[in-house]
Amino acid sequence: MRSGKVRSIELYDARKLIVEAAAVLDAEEVCLSESLNRYPSMDLLSLEALPGYDQSLRDGYAIGKGDARGKDSPAFRIVDEVPAGDTRKLSLAPGEAVRIMTGALVPDNTERVIPKERCRVAENTLEFDEELAWIGKNFIHGKGSELGRGECIVEKGRVIHAEQQILLAGVGYESVSLVRRPKLSFFCTGSELVSGPGENRAGKKFSANSHLLHGLIELNGALLLEEQTVKDDSAAVDRVMAAMFASDADIIISTGGMGPGKFDLVEDAFRRAGGKVLYNSLNMRPGKSTLFGTLGDTLFFGMPGPPPAVHLLFNELIRTAILALQGAESCSPQELNAFLTGAMPNGNGLARLKSAQLFFEDGRCLVRPAAGLDVANCYIYCPGDGKSLAAGDLVRVHMTASTQGCS
Amino acid sequence: MRSGKVRSIELYDARKLIVEAAAVLDAEEVCLSESLNRYPSMDLLSLEALPGYDQSLRDGYAIGKGDARGKDSPAFRIVDEVPAGDTRKLSLAPGEAVRIMTGALVPDNTERVIPKERCRVAENTLEFDEELAWIGKNFIHGKGSELGRGECIVEKGRVIHAEQQILLAGVGYESVSLVRRPKLSFFCTGSELVSGPGENRAGKKFSANSHLLHGLIELNGALLLEEQTVKDDSAAVDRVMAAMFASDADIIISTGGMGPGKFDLVEDAFRRAGGKVLYNSLNMRPGKSTLFGTLGDTLFFGMPGPPPAVHLLFNELIRTAILALQGAESCSPQELNAFLTGAMPNGNGLARLKSAQLFFEDGRCLVRPAAGLDVANCYIYCPGDGKSLAAGDLVRVHMTASTQGCS
Repeated sequence: MRSGKVRSIELYDARKLIVEAAAVLDAEEVCLSESLNRYPSMDLLSLEALPGYDQSLRDGYAIGKGDARGKDSPAFRIVDEVPAGDTRKLSLAPGEAVRIMTGALVPDNTERVIPKERCRVAENTLEFDEELAWIGKNFIHGKGSELGRGECIVEKGRVIHAEQQILLAGVGYESVSLVRRPKLSFFCTGSELVSGPGENRAGKKFSANSHLLHGLIELNGALLLEEQTVKDDSAAVDRVMAAMFASDADIIISTGGMGPGKFDLVEDAFRRAGGKVLYNSLNMRPGKSTLFGTLGDTLFFGMPGPPPAVHLLFNELIRTAILALQGAESCSPQELNAFLTGAMPNGNGLARLKSAQLFFEDGRCLVRPAAGLDVANCYIYCPGDGKSLAAGDLVRVHMTASTQGCS
Repeated sequence: MRSGKVRSIELYDARKLIVEAAAVLDAEEVCLSESLNRYPSMDLLSLEALPGYDQSLRDGYAIGKGDARGKDSPAFRIVDEVPAGDTRKLSLAPGEAVRIMTGALVPDNTERVIPKERCRVAENTLEFDEELAWIGKNFIHGKGSELGRGECIVEKGRVIHAEQQILLAGVGYESVSLVRRPKLSFFCTGSELVSGPGENRAGKKFSANSHLLHGLIELNGALLLEEQTVKDDSAAVDRVMAAMFASDADIIISTGGMGPGKFDLVEDAFRRAGGKVLYNSLNMRPGKSTLFGTLGDTLFFGMPGPPPAVHLLFNELIRTAILALQGAESCSPQELNAFLTGAMPNGNGLARLKSAQLFFEDGRCLVRPAAGLDVANCYIYCPGDGKSLAAGDLVRVHMTASTQGCS
């Protein structure tokens, strides 16, 4: 039974409160190999020009500047060979050429590289037909042409993508300073929860939230610290809450015990523990009975019991907290507009998120509500403003963690 | 230098060859908590009905069948209380009621549950106004209403989603039989490759493929077994290949050494090791110089050296192998059609995949080629058929691993 007063809030306002409450975590130095999809603690700048030297783009021959242009088959004398990895800085005189490999250091005074398939070589003499050999490219990847020294590769607040890992590696980063991953602990309340087939009988339920949260925590880039299952017992809920708040957890999640009933103990326990409730109801279904608060720097989410509501709220709000703690600029699930494939209920009063299937056809985004055992990949936001939702209407779609990234 | 003859192939045919060559890996029993985004080794059927018993959907009162209908305020005698988790199977007589909690076992002969906020209770007497209390719902989640015993929750060949984890947990799965994750080993060839800033100078390059592959392997749900960097030395390449083929690797990847040059040693080394080359050139840029073959059950991908080409080929082909080894029904990157935001070169002859940014506007899919330091989230497939590609044209887009899931 809840003793505190109800502070009800809209979904989008809830997200703002969460972002405001989340203090960015401290930095850690991490091997570049482990940095994909993580957030840097500072702007990551280029340590040097990329490429760091003029590189050949082909296996072929580098020819010296100053040869006679316009001849049909100019002949060059091949004076050396430069494999990739050779660090000798050669210099070419007019009429000289070197055999050179892809990626190798181009000698000083090189005019251009001629790919080997366009060359004729006999002994140490190189010839080529100018019309075939000159196609408007010098086949040299010039020093600094990709990136200048000091240019920003990844801004603070942006996630590290694979292409950026390539650039960071190229300029010599072996490790990078990242915001550490948030640590989560959770407890599932409910005297009806059992695990293990032996314990099951009418009146008991297998706990699904535990399995679900394991996967969602990992999928969203956080770390699981600890999990517990507790009965609907006030002293037991107090104990697990005290233990988790005394630990290193950045986020604590509970499931169940959030309704107005006699056995809904979570909010009172959180207040007794010293927690500050920022909201304890959402103007939305599912997910109406949910709580967010802080205790020191730790964020607390009291979630309802039904696993589909936990799944939805994780996507809409806990993911926001995980991103905000890492200093992400954008902490909301990605949203887009899509055309409804058929009419659906909207409702008058409470907003609703309906699980749905987003798909694409001929350049259009389409969405249909999920039914029965359908697997959903998004939620349709129904504003609950009483307006009918008909086939062909554009509706707002929230992507789930597994579909994020389609910007 | 390549001694074998060239077998060049289209991208889509390459994928078919890879799927044909991939024998589904063996099964392993895995905790349900670790099963998200993995593939079952068999159809996963419901072990029992879900829910397993008639559950109350609200905190309130279950009333017995057979009371006098139509009265304004029928009075019921409250005879007991059923909290969630209580396994006693009560039975109600006409005129009797029990206090009941959300999720609790509904007694036999219950007509319906009345939510507590619609009830008036004094001592052990329950009253309610029929007009307020009856809103067309009995607030009972009936046994088997979600899932019947024996119904298929996840088909073999389909990936396990969070909603399905919830159902699997609900019917009592604690672990599931999954196809094991493919194990990958890779080696990067190139005498120019160094790691560590002390070793860097003109002519040398930091190895980016190693960092890149770490992340891509994990992101695509495979396991990294071993990695090596080797110089452009025939004996060294032979050695690392022999060691990796003698290990438990399901997929072996090399980078570099795939061109037609004197130091391009990978194909010959693979043939000497006993490998069977299925193709050694793709009719596509980037990624033309690439090889796929088998040695026993092990799949081998010889990839070019430039990291952007490695990134692209991982997405287009190695991901296909990772999925096929897990028995996935669909092993291709997700594709969709999107409208070009501006003209772009197509080319005449060779198909091309151009990294690009996919975004959504008013229900439409739009795509623009990436430039400079832009972060891409997809590739545009340019067929290279000489037809111009203009603003507003529908083009084929291949999503990358991080954008998969938007079906």
